[in-house]
Amino acid sequence: MKRVAGLDRSCFENQMKFLIEADKMKNILRQTLLADGSRRENDAEHSWHFALMAMTLAEYSAREIDMLRVLKMALLHDIVEIYAGDTFAYDEKGHEDKAEREAAAADKIFAMLPAEQSAEYRELWEEFDAMETADSRYAATIDRLQPLVNNYLTNGHTWKLGNVTSDKVYKRISVAEDTIPEVWPIIRKYIEKAIDSGMLKR
Amino acid sequence: MKRVAGLDRSCFENQMKFLIEADKMKNILRQTLLADGSRRENDAEHSWHFALMAMTLAEYSAREIDMLRVLKMALLHDIVEIYAGDTFAYDEKGHEDKAEREAAAADKIFAMLPAEQSAEYRELWEEFDAMETADSRYAATIDRLQPLVNNYLTNGHTWKLGNVTSDKVYKRISVAEDTIPEVWPIIRKYIEKAIDSGMLKR
Repeated sequence: MKRVAGLDRSCFENQMKFLIEADKMKNILRQTLLADGSRRENDAEHSWHFALMAMTLAEYSAREIDMLRVLKMALLHDIVEIYAGDTFAYDEKGHEDKAEREAAAADKIFAMLPAEQSAEYRELWEEFDAMETADSRYAATIDRLQPLVNNYLTNGHTWKLGNVTSDKVYKRISVAEDTIPEVWPIIRKYIEKAIDSGMLKR
Repeated sequence: MKRVAGLDRSCFENQMKFLIEADKMKNILRQTLLADGSRRENDAEHSWHFALMAMTLAEYSAREIDMLRVLKMALLHDIVEIYAGDTFAYDEKGHEDKAEREAAAADKIFAMLPAEQSAEYRELWEEFDAMETADSRYAATIDRLQPLVNNYLTNGHTWKLGNVTSDKVYKRISVAEDTIPEVWPIIRKYIEKAIDSGMLKR
């Protein structure tokens, strides 16, 4: 994106409004706890950790990925939750209207930006959500791996909270078998350890 | 970075240890408040907001920049604070031994990673800190702009806390005049407004 000449003042002011609105991500709480178990994690922290994990584990991606696009997805993927709220991964009822709530939120948040950037961010968010491309499938894998690790470290906190069974955990993280196949056996091993130690119901 | 064949188990486990250690960023508090003034911001939240701001304002960079490198710097730039702690930008005493404390912390945190990745991350962190390249100068600008915005929105909270005068604020953000020259007059305008409204001492 390049402007023709000079700064468009209203364009810049709108970008700043978007960035200030984005501050609210720091107050959207997830079910996941910090690794030390001290409190719930928020969306801004999760997005940062997801991005750091995505760049650090890039070498395990089975398919060629564009890390800049993956990082942009990581930084943007939860921003609709400013208006739509966080829906717990294993909350089936909450998922019934999740798509509708989040689409309305996306209309609102991305509309704050200049047209071209608005379209770019909206498309990245939709691509992430659809999980059809190599970039979005890798990104979605890491988005799911990050809370899985923190759950394991906090004695299965959200699995217990949601009365989650291992088949649901396997189903949610199963994309990893395709996207980061070398890591998949290690993920499986930890899920089995979580079951054996009573963190997670069989 | 590509491995020759198959997953090196100890390499992966070390990367996971690094990523779990990184969770501590969520407990490193900065002086800056959230935009709503409700509490202090932490390093993970700041790093996410910095990265989002960097990608959103990219078009204002006067020089060609590599956004992937800028985002990696944003995600990594404060990680040494896990061991070195956050040094308030206007704390002159704290800055006396900041470089030493942070270099020791970098030795510790980056050593957790496989050699090649360890070197890549360390070099990105050092490049950011030295502020000599186009990528790092743009990144440093955004790292300084993000708390300036939040400070302005919270009635000059950290300026008052540190008894900071406007010459110090101007000095710290002056890199913006060179890196995002079209935005510079707007930044100046807001600093002058902060002075006029009593948030910041002349």
